[in-house]
Amino acid sequence: MISNSFPTETRSYDLVVVGAGPGGFDAALEAAEEGIKVALVERYLLGGTCLNVGCIPTKMYLGATSPVEELAAQSKARVAKGEIEVDFNSLCTKKDRFIAATRKAMAQKAKKLGIDIYPAVAKVIDPGKVEVSHPEEKAVLGYKNLILATGSHPTVFPGLEPDNETILDNSGFLALEEMPTSLLVIGAGFIGLEMAQIAHRSGCKITVVDALDRIAVYEDPEVSKALQGVFKRHKWKFNLGVKVKSVTAENGQAVLRTEDGEEFTADKALIAIGRRPNSAELGIEKLELETEGPGFVKVNENLEAADNVYAIGDLNGKILLAHAASHQAGYVVRRIAGKAEGPYEHGPIPSILYGSPETMRVGLMPADLEGKGEVKTSSFPLVANPIAQAYASTQGFVKVVWLDGKVAGITAVGHHVAGFTTAASMIVQEEWTKDDIHKVVFPHPSLDEALLGALKAEQVEPK
Amino acid sequence: MISNSFPTETRSYDLVVVGAGPGGFDAALEAAEEGIKVALVERYLLGGTCLNVGCIPTKMYLGATSPVEELAAQSKARVAKGEIEVDFNSLCTKKDRFIAATRKAMAQKAKKLGIDIYPAVAKVIDPGKVEVSHPEEKAVLGYKNLILATGSHPTVFPGLEPDNETILDNSGFLALEEMPTSLLVIGAGFIGLEMAQIAHRSGCKITVVDALDRIAVYEDPEVSKALQGVFKRHKWKFNLGVKVKSVTAENGQAVLRTEDGEEFTADKALIAIGRRPNSAELGIEKLELETEGPGFVKVNENLEAADNVYAIGDLNGKILLAHAASHQAGYVVRRIAGKAEGPYEHGPIPSILYGSPETMRVGLMPADLEGKGEVKTSSFPLVANPIAQAYASTQGFVKVVWLDGKVAGITAVGHHVAGFTTAASMIVQEEWTKDDIHKVVFPHPSLDEALLGALKAEQVEPK
Repeated sequence: MISNSFPTETRSYDLVVVGAGPGGFDAALEAAEEGIKVALVERYLLGGTCLNVGCIPTKMYLGATSPVEELAAQSKARVAKGEIEVDFNSLCTKKDRFIAATRKAMAQKAKKLGIDIYPAVAKVIDPGKVEVSHPEEKAVLGYKNLILATGSHPTVFPGLEPDNETILDNSGFLALEEMPTSLLVIGAGFIGLEMAQIAHRSGCKITVVDALDRIAVYEDPEVSKALQGVFKRHKWKFNLGVKVKSVTAENGQAVLRTEDGEEFTADKALIAIGRRPNSAELGIEKLELETEGPGFVKVNENLEAADNVYAIGDLNGKILLAHAASHQAGYVVRRIAGKAEGPYEHGPIPSILYGSPETMRVGLMPADLEGKGEVKTSSFPLVANPIAQAYASTQGFVKVVWLDGKVAGITAVGHHVAGFTTAASMIVQEEWTKDDIHKVVFPHPSLDEALLGALKAEQVEPK
Repeated sequence: MISNSFPTETRSYDLVVVGAGPGGFDAALEAAEEGIKVALVERYLLGGTCLNVGCIPTKMYLGATSPVEELAAQSKARVAKGEIEVDFNSLCTKKDRFIAATRKAMAQKAKKLGIDIYPAVAKVIDPGKVEVSHPEEKAVLGYKNLILATGSHPTVFPGLEPDNETILDNSGFLALEEMPTSLLVIGAGFIGLEMAQIAHRSGCKITVVDALDRIAVYEDPEVSKALQGVFKRHKWKFNLGVKVKSVTAENGQAVLRTEDGEEFTADKALIAIGRRPNSAELGIEKLELETEGPGFVKVNENLEAADNVYAIGDLNGKILLAHAASHQAGYVVRRIAGKAEGPYEHGPIPSILYGSPETMRVGLMPADLEGKGEVKTSSFPLVANPIAQAYASTQGFVKVVWLDGKVAGITAVGHHVAGFTTAASMIVQEEWTKDDIHKVVFPHPSLDEALLGALKAEQVEPK
């Protein structure tokens, strides 16, 4: 990180941004482009969790191991055979190199725009003043506007503390130089399921444990079911509705004990049971900010936690997704620049689980719409799509949710379905009716035609 | 095909459709759904070229061989190694089975809707009358409305006649039970380049010959160049701007001779030099229809070739793409049903080349816009996209074409870029300005962000 010299006297900024993840970095960049004088404070690494130990490296691992899964599908269809060996040591190096290069490019871009970057811990010491410190230096920055974008960290419960040798969190998993032969995955959300797929592709035996009774619980129940169906065919073991008491390293093995006295053992365990906001050491009590739940900073309709103090991204707990943070950043900067009036509004925020299958979801699902009007669904099975057939990956479907005759949400599960996410977002945002379907020409053949098929299909009562 | 008994007397229909490819079949289906009494005449197979010997089987081959290309990319990045062997005999069987099942489902759907299918050659014998005949039976069908949707066939020049042993056309290529060790590809359009990729993935040496000076000539020149760059890295040989005199089979080898006296030899040759309309034996002279070029049936702004006689799809030569034919079918049926007023209009028609890389294009390119206003382009390189990095396929870019500050066209070349085609179509159709970019939340990380990057990038003079 290109660091700024620490001033000995209070240095004043129009805007101080705390946290350089997708939300904070984009906020700093866009503000500087508006001619606002910006300081960006980051205690760890530019890019935050997403770039360094989250979505980006996970997708690199999923992309790199994708041929394994594609070959497995064609093998099953008896069309191809072969062997693929992934070198995780080399992949880890490649990933580190790409991420470092991205951080470097980010720092250069920020520097070019005149942003002062402080590699430091930030703490509000008084309204209008943030102390920035690292082991050797300390300074006070004055601000007219403050954006808090400190993100989140993995949830840890007593008894489930990762040692990142045998008991891993996301960072520990992404630092592995080879995959274990068996893995306990505690938590069947996005992170757990994406990482489990990476391990699976190296022949690792997967056991998934979750307190809830279905996987990918944020998804529509039919999507969860289809997803679990595919993973079951991979011979993954599922232990759902199970309360975990402890996960410990014993003789180099991971041992999981449930409240019911069951015991599971594997080479390693991955703890992926959700994330908590980084709000504890920010000094927000000096600003009398309110928090809720595990420490999410409460914001008003303008994303303000107090006058001229904004909390964006994971920290406000609205939607824990990088692109939601970036979008909030854009609004807040336009607001500070006097270019956005009225409350924060956003189009539908899409959500993707990568891997094979992928899932995509945008807008509202039947469970969100109970009592809100006439709800119908229409769907299309991937088995009828030639591109899904071509990839020998025909499990899955596209489902459209209609509210009073307009598209309210779209979800899908299957190979490569993330590809039509932006089209689906636009269709939800534009609230298509059945008549709108003719206005856009979908390419043939394409996976997008499965989306078209779902839009055209008979509308029925939701299951 | 479920055939209808041939009537001994003239049987009258509200609508006779000739040709059961994507245009004709969709027309028949949509008409029957409108309660129109329909006869569908097909001389060969339901689904036409697209389903049987065109886009569908080609995509099945590209999908099935995709792991080979993905592994090659990761191998080059030193992240994975391995061997994959594709069994083309088995793939050919699987493809035939899928296509037969699709045809069967089509026939059942048509039957359920009360469509009479005639497996026969159709010939207009008088205005209002079509003779349908196959070797054993013959009948006359009366029509109020006639839709001609007979499609096209591969162009054959004297001296380039395929024997489908050594000199192949698309049908011959798709019937191969194993790939040749070397292939001469005559014609560097979609068909030639997609099939060449399939052969390449089995280790076949590729030599491309074309009379024009660049490949994929319908694409933006920068896309052609990037595409050729990737194929050159595959060690394909290109002989462009070359006039082919003859391609003949000699001692079991394909021998190509140019007008300049050059000679190329390979195991097999693929002739893919374009397509011609199937208008010769239709009896269109009885309706005094006009044709143009190699026999394309001229239509007015309502797609009418004469009163109540429509020509759609490849036959009218407007756009030789299956989804264009289907879209025209929808309009014509709505017109016949009295539900469409005014001339035929369509949104931007996307065009995709599959393989690795893929290309996508929708709307207008700089060459289409000369003198029409202020033209700018903005682009984003795939090397800066984390999903492209994940697939170790970073060659390529997304390019947005602006006309007077509005998006007029979008094109891209690179791994999986076809995925955002429908979103791009919608953006072109909605003529986005720079301000519209904020209204849609793009998922992160995603390949779609390369499209977002191109939309946001600096607008410059087209090269």
